[in-house]
Amino acid sequence: MSLIGDLDLASVAGLERALLIAPFHRWLGLRVAAIGPQGIEITMPGRQEVVSNPAVQSTHGGVLASLIDLTGLYSVLAVGGLATATADLRVDYHRPAKPGELRVIGRVVKLGKRLSVADAEILDAEGVLVASGRGAYLGG
Amino acid sequence: MSLIGDLDLASVAGLERALLIAPFHRWLGLRVAAIGPQGIEITMPGRQEVVSNPAVQSTHGGVLASLIDLTGLYSVLAVGGLATATADLRVDYHRPAKPGELRVIGRVVKLGKRLSVADAEILDAEGVLVASGRGAYLGG
Amino acid sequence: MSLIGDLDLASVAGLERALLIAPFHRWLGLRVAAIGPQGIEITMPGRQEVVSNPAVQSTHGGVLASLIDLTGLYSVLAVGGLATATADLRVDYHRPAKPGELRVIGRVVKLGKRLSVADAEILDAEGVLVASGRGAYLGG
Amino acid sequence: MSLIGDLDLASVAGLERALLIAPFHRWLGLRVAAIGPQGIEITMPGRQEVVSNPAVQSTHGGVLASLIDLTGLYSVLAVGGLATATADLRVDYHRPAKPGELRVIGRVVKLGKRLSVADAEILDAEGVLVASGRGAYLGG
Repeated sequence: MSLIGDLDLASVAGLERALLIAPFHRWLGLRVAAIGPQGIEITMPGRQEVVSNPAVQSTHGGVLASLIDLTGLYSVLAVGGLATATADLRVDYHRPAKPGELRVIGRVVKLGKRLSVADAEILDAEGVLVASGRGAYLGG
Repeated sequence: MSLIGDLDLASVAGLERALLIAPFHRWLGLRVAAIGPQGIEITMPGRQEVVSNPAVQSTHGGVLASLIDLTGLYSVLAVGGLATATADLRVDYHRPAKPGELRVIGRVVKLGKRLSVADAEILDAEGVLVASGRGAYLGG
Repeated sequence: MSLIGDLDLASVAGLERALLIAPFHRWLGLRVAAIGPQGIEITMPGRQEVVSNPAVQSTHGGVLASLIDLTGLYSVLAVGGLATATADLRVDYHRPAKPGELRVIGRVVKLGKRLSVADAEILDAEGVLVASGRGAYLGG
Repeated sequence: MSLIGDLDLASVAGLERALLIAPFHRWLGLRVAAIGPQGIEITMPGRQEVVSNPAVQSTHGGVLASLIDLTGLYSVLAVGGLATATADLRVDYHRPAKPGELRVIGRVVKLGKRLSVADAEILDAEGVLVASGRGAYLGG
């Protein structure tokens, strides 16, 4: 994480720069929409290559899992916690995600030296909950 | 899943055609390496856009989650079960995934009418376990 | 669930009668403290037999898992959903649970015909979050 | 874990003594049946107080979760790993557990300094798989 050592992770601009160090995050077209006291909000635009079922143009569950994972991890960083790697990840899929922008809302559940836990919910362009889940993140 | 209705999901060629209906699976460059009595084996080539940490060129945890998810689901289909959608997914990250081809080995734990469960393990190019996890899949 | 067919699951008294049909719930000494629009609140008294580490008198993680499981399931029932069995359960342990009464707060995340999902948080006698988690419950 | 400091955790007798330090484990009537190179085998007798649904005399899901949790943790200890606390736990319920003795088979997936992961499967008296799951355990 030394790559992000000079960035202000409590600011939208600094956190977004840290987030976009990852080539996969750039490919997904992620943006940091907001930082709050308990976590962050991320957006991802619709994109043909992330579709799972072409008949309904639903976003792939693995992409939704990526969003839960990274929104949880950067929520821990944004509120001042340590998160050097994801230990484990759990995702529940509630409804197919319709085409269009997705919004992901992260919330830190527990900050710990060894392990932190954060929840995240994914809403589609109409504000409907499509998936939610939780990551556990290793500290220093 | 009517798109895959005419395919022979117990054959490598038929299962791979079904798998590659999903644009995201095509983008990942997936191949079906083998089908066994308990599940399937998938490979994914290395690719710059799936990198998480550019300093070590590790594959993004969300991409690994995608591999666990889809290998479990297609393992259920390959052994004759029903799986129309992922209900939930859990992934443990054991080590950073080094650059190069990844191999994913799926194993069905329980076939059910309403819900099936399958495990998957991801090995890097040196055969080292980098992640493992489990999906629960809704039936008809 | 025919045993609970005549009970009013939206009332504290009816839900508690349904809850206490299970011998294990009676043994745990559970009480329904409240029913809200999104879920229920359960209490469990301290008890020597549920201790894990006798040096610190912490409640066993499996007992905490039981509380997450049952509070989620009865939250689904209390808000009018169907839940005939737990499909899967996930629990995060945040701190050792000190001796004394535990309070569990459930919240339904998604009501579905086939599968419902509910979260639960466990607070110790001082109101500190000791564990939290989620269950997925099969419908009819 | 200083309580278990003098016990030989690689022997059935030593591991069982360590296991039975926990009052809840004594109440459950646990026995260590075997220790292998990858994990341990535990048995639990049937008991009226652990029943969930009295109509079918099924064992409560929270008790099954306890068995997954403790069998994973003591599997880590038995093969020489460190496990001071459960970080998180995931359980899938495959079938109702019929009355009678349960057998739990643990297998270490990853030994780590900071975090270890172990799987466990629960078989009923007829050898049928009733539940399976995984724990992640904090090291020193």
